[in-house]
This record gives sequence, C-alpha cells and structure tokens, in this order.
Amino acid sequence: MKSLFVLVLGNTEISLIPGISVAGATPELTKLTPPADAEYLFYEKPRIIDAIPVTPEGHPTPAIITKAARELAKFPILVVRGGTYLPPMLPHVHISDKIGRDFREEPALPEVEEIIERAKLLGEELNKTNIEELVIGESTPGGTTTAQAVLWALGYEARTSSASPSNPQELKRKVIEEGFKRAGVEKGSLKDDPIEAIRQFGDPMMATVVGLSLGFRKNVVLAGGTQMLAVAAVLKALEESMDRFMIATTKWIVQDKSATFVETAREIGIITYSADLDFSNSKFKGLQDYERGYVKEGVGAGGATWLAVKAGFSPEDVSRKVEELYERLMKMKG
Amino acid sequence: MKSLFVLVLGNTEISLIPGISVAGATPELTKLTPPADAEYLFYEKPRIIDAIPVTPEGHPTPAIITKAARELAKFPILVVRGGTYLPPMLPHVHISDKIGRDFREEPALPEVEEIIERAKLLGEELNKTNIEELVIGESTPGGTTTAQAVLWALGYEARTSSASPSNPQELKRKVIEEGFKRAGVEKGSLKDDPIEAIRQFGDPMMATVVGLSLGFRKNVVLAGGTQMLAVAAVLKALEESMDRFMIATTKWIVQDKSATFVETAREIGIITYSADLDFSNSKFKGLQDYERGYVKEGVGAGGATWLAVKAGFSPEDVSRKVEELYERLMKMKG
Repeated sequence: MKSLFVLVLGNTEISLIPGISVAGATPELTKLTPPADAEYLFYEKPRIIDAIPVTPEGHPTPAIITKAARELAKFPILVVRGGTYLPPMLPHVHISDKIGRDFREEPALPEVEEIIERAKLLGEELNKTNIEELVIGESTPGGTTTAQAVLWALGYEARTSSASPSNPQELKRKVIEEGFKRAGVEKGSLKDDPIEAIRQFGDPMMATVVGLSLGFRKNVVLAGGTQMLAVAAVLKALEESMDRFMIATTKWIVQDKSATFVETAREIGIITYSADLDFSNSKFKGLQDYERGYVKEGVGAGGATWLAVKAGFSPEDVSRKVEELYERLMKMKG
Repeated sequence: MKSLFVLVLGNTEISLIPGISVAGATPELTKLTPPADAEYLFYEKPRIIDAIPVTPEGHPTPAIITKAARELAKFPILVVRGGTYLPPMLPHVHISDKIGRDFREEPALPEVEEIIERAKLLGEELNKTNIEELVIGESTPGGTTTAQAVLWALGYEARTSSASPSNPQELKRKVIEEGFKRAGVEKGSLKDDPIEAIRQFGDPMMATVVGLSLGFRKNVVLAGGTQMLAVAAVLKALEESMDRFMIATTKWIVQDKSATFVETAREIGIITYSADLDFSNSKFKGLQDYERGYVKEGVGAGGATWLAVKAGFSPEDVSRKVEELYERLMKMKG
C-alpha cells in the first residue's frame, strides 16, 4: 500500500478538568487513553490497562472503527508518541514525553519548537521513501479544547466538537478565556504567530502533526475532526498551501450542530471527506449511541475508513466489522 | 527510494570489560556510542555528547561512512532503539530500553522474546507499505563478542572481527568460555534453540534485527560484518530461507585474517557484498588507519555504501565524501 497511517498520541492536563473530556471513564483515566487506543489497534485488548477506553457512560473508543478498517484494508500503522504520560507498550516512534500543561496557569508547550523539529525530521525521512501519502490520526483527550483555543488565537470564530452529545461549550469558553487572560492574548492576536499559539494553548499532538506535515512533502490526510482544523489552520498560517492537504472525518462531526466543522474548514480552505458510517442498526447501545452524538471521531476513524474505501470496501463493510469487533469485546468481558 | 535504511541501536555490558571493545574512547563511553552514532547521521555533531565516537586512539566512527553515503544517495533512515542505556536525541522507534547483561554472570537477555515480538510487529507494518527492501545496520559496542558467543552456541567455528587491528581473540574466548560454563552450554549445544542462544549470550540489537527480519517478508540486507553473521545464523536456525537475505559489509571485514567472515557466510549460505572503500590516500591518519585494520565496519557502513552504489555513485565517491566530512569535523574542533 502506498499510504501509511500514522497515529499520533498526545496528552494535555486540560483533560483533567472535570467536565472537559469524556475520552476516558474518569478524568484520571484519560491519561491512559492514548496508549490504550494504540495498543487496541494491534492486540485484542490494550496492554497498559485491561479494557478499551470508554466514555464515563461506557461508549467504546473510536479506535474500534480504526481497527475495523485496518482489519479490512490491512493498511500499515506507525504509532508516534508526540507527548504522553506513558508510552504505549508496542513499537512506536518516540518524539517526546512532554504533555501539554494547563494553559490557564502556564504556557501549554514550551517545547513546541523541539517537538516540531523532531517530527519534521521524521516526516523528511518518510518523504524520501516511496510512500506517497500519510494519513495522520490522533488520540488526545481534552484536545478539542486546546484546538478551539488555538483556533481562537489564530482568529477563527470556531467551535470545536466534543465526544459528548452535550458539548461543554460554556466550560470550554471559560477555560479558554482564563488562558487568554493569563497569556495576555485576544482572539486573533496570534494570527501571525501560530507557533506561539501552540506554545501558549496547544498540545504535543498538534506540534507533532504540524512537524510531520512540514517534513513530508507529498499528500497528507489529516484524519480527525475539529482538532485537525486547528492543525490545518496552523499550517496555513505557516504559509503551507492547502492543496496537498485534506481532512478526513466522520459524518457525526459534520452533522454536529454544536461545532463549526464545515464553516471553519471552508474558511481555512481545506477539502474534507466524511465517512458515512452508520451504527443505527447495531445490537449494542454503546455503538447505537454514536448516532446520538456520543464519541463521533478520534484515533483517525474517518481517515481509516477512507483508506478502507480506497481499498474497495464500503462504509457499511466497516460498520459491520465494528459490530463484529464489539461483539468480540463483549464476549471477552463475558 | 524503495529501500529503507534501518539503524538498530544496542548496548551490552560486555563492552565494559576492559580490552573487549574499542567502539568508544573508554569502556564507559561505549555506553554513549549507539545514540551518538545515530545523531551524527542527522546532525553536524552528536547531541548526547559533543564529539563523534572514536576509538581510544582517535579513529572516527564508521558512522562517517554511512553519513557520507546518505549525503550522496539521500536514502531514508529509521533509527530503532533495540535496547540502549540512553535514547538518541532524535525521533526513533522505541523497542526497548533493555541492555544485554554480562553473560559471564547471568543470562544476557531474559527479554529476548518480547523484543523479537515487538520488532516483528514493526517489521510487519513496514511490510504492508510499498517499501521493498530493508537495509539494516547496527551500532552495538561489544557486539562482536556476543556475536561470536551466539555463533559458537549454534555450532559455528567462527571468529568474529574487531574494530581493533589486534583482534582480542584470546580475551573473547576466555569471556565466552566463562559464559558457556555459567550457562552449562557447549559449542553447538543450542543449535536447535537459537532464541535461547540470544537469551544466554546475545544482545538487544540481535533480537531486534531478528524480529524485524521475521516481520518484513521482502528483501533484507543485513548491513554489517561478523555481527550480522550471528543474526543470519539465528534466522537460518529459525528455518528462514536465506534467499531473501544478503549481508553487505566492507572490504576491511572480508580481508580481516583474524576473523572468518567469508568462511562463516559460506557455511550459513548467505550471499555477501563488500564495499570497496579506500582511505589510503586520505590526508588524515584517523582515516588512513582504516587501511591498517582499525574500525572496519559498523553503523551499516557497507550497506549504506551499497545503497549509494545502487543510486549511481561509486565507492570512490563515498570515500571522497568521507574525507570531506572528516575535514569538516576537524575544522569544527579547530
């Protein structure tokens, strides 16, 4: 296959703020979500913890979609530790072990330049191979809040999505405004300094994806929802042409009325693909609830589906395989 | 380019035995040689230490040959931490941080299976890409002693090479015999259990290269001298056909009368390429001395030259580029 799926793992302390993130059963467990997501793609269960990541209400991680697409299309995956509390227990590219700090209190990522430089080096090496396309997904609890903060700092009137059906926009706004106050920043005031926007409000996933995208000069598919909009906005502000970029996400992101995915993508000028997955006929409430706005996207679910579609499978095939994988999980839990 | 150069880093406590290894100015400094070698390929100087690795007498690391070939042929490099004291300060695939223990006192690598399994997973992912060939080099001070121990355990009457013109064969033999005694092993007694041979006497580089080679099912070039013979012997004992394997090394290894490179390669049944590098006209004693049996090989120097030759450069071009790089280093020191 001429495409390589890259899964970038990141953590930010923002996910520990109660109510911000449901990418884990508790705020504390969001620390383990990125490595557990990566491990679940390769094994029957994560290794760092004995269960797949779920929301507090038990909805399964979107890694199940990525895993389903991978079992069909057999695309290669490279796991990259952009910056997490713990490394995944499998082979992965180490970029850093820096996590994003709580930007209400201090700059989020003083190491932004080092992380971008390292990730760029990796991108440059991959660029020398005959691999023609990177599809870059991510697992970063709390990442929609850092994304919205960066988009605001760059001047976009954007609302990012959430893995919860009730997007905590009031809380996000309050957290971001505290951060802006701390940093002496207003909406749009960093529009010419996107690196500073990441340093003040971003997370290590963003820095890593930006670096990879700068080093790899061929096609890049940013596999994610509104978090990848923040990455695209940073790349645009760095004067990268959007022509070789695309965002691949899921229909649940596009349909999310609490967020501005379509509008912001248009404003940035990046084309988008949205995977028409459908779990409404699932036997399992955990999956059915995706149709009610739970989870929506993550771990490059939309981009992985896009790779499966390119390989000749349909979104229905992927949805069916997800059902099968979830059934397997339920039996193991037995 | 359809080939990927993979540099596997390993450490073993064996390199700390005085007189065993000259892959560092002192035995203690051999701990830093693998990450420093990797860093020198990407930067003007290593980052973990402010000078390139040298022998106690000041001969430069063979990484200078690999770097020269890379600057000409621009092949992609993936650095893999098989198991080292310290990580290299650049993007690298993390397999383990286990180092080989002193096999005179205890089994060298209790983690052998985990390391092989992880490296195999990486090889499998690379196998799914359109990359057609891995060229796998290594940096492992003390590695010719672990290699000879493994070859003996597998029943080969082999003598491995050395980075010194006076191969410490007496000392190697004594060390290996102590190890054999500790483990209750004789020459050839592990010929049907190559994994046990690595567990008892090997190093994490070997386990990593074996795993990569098992996972990646296309062409594999083992870029090294007698250390790669040990890897090939293990793969053969695991019933891998040697048809898709080749060893690429330097003329200095082939010409080394203190070692049995040609004979052992023939016995294993693996084809070999030897790079006709020539430093006899160098202005620098550090390089001239390669012609007197110093250094010889390492960091995939022979395999890197082979990639340069495939890209249309001559061994003379590589030798000239080495001279240029060494001149640059001398000026920086100046």
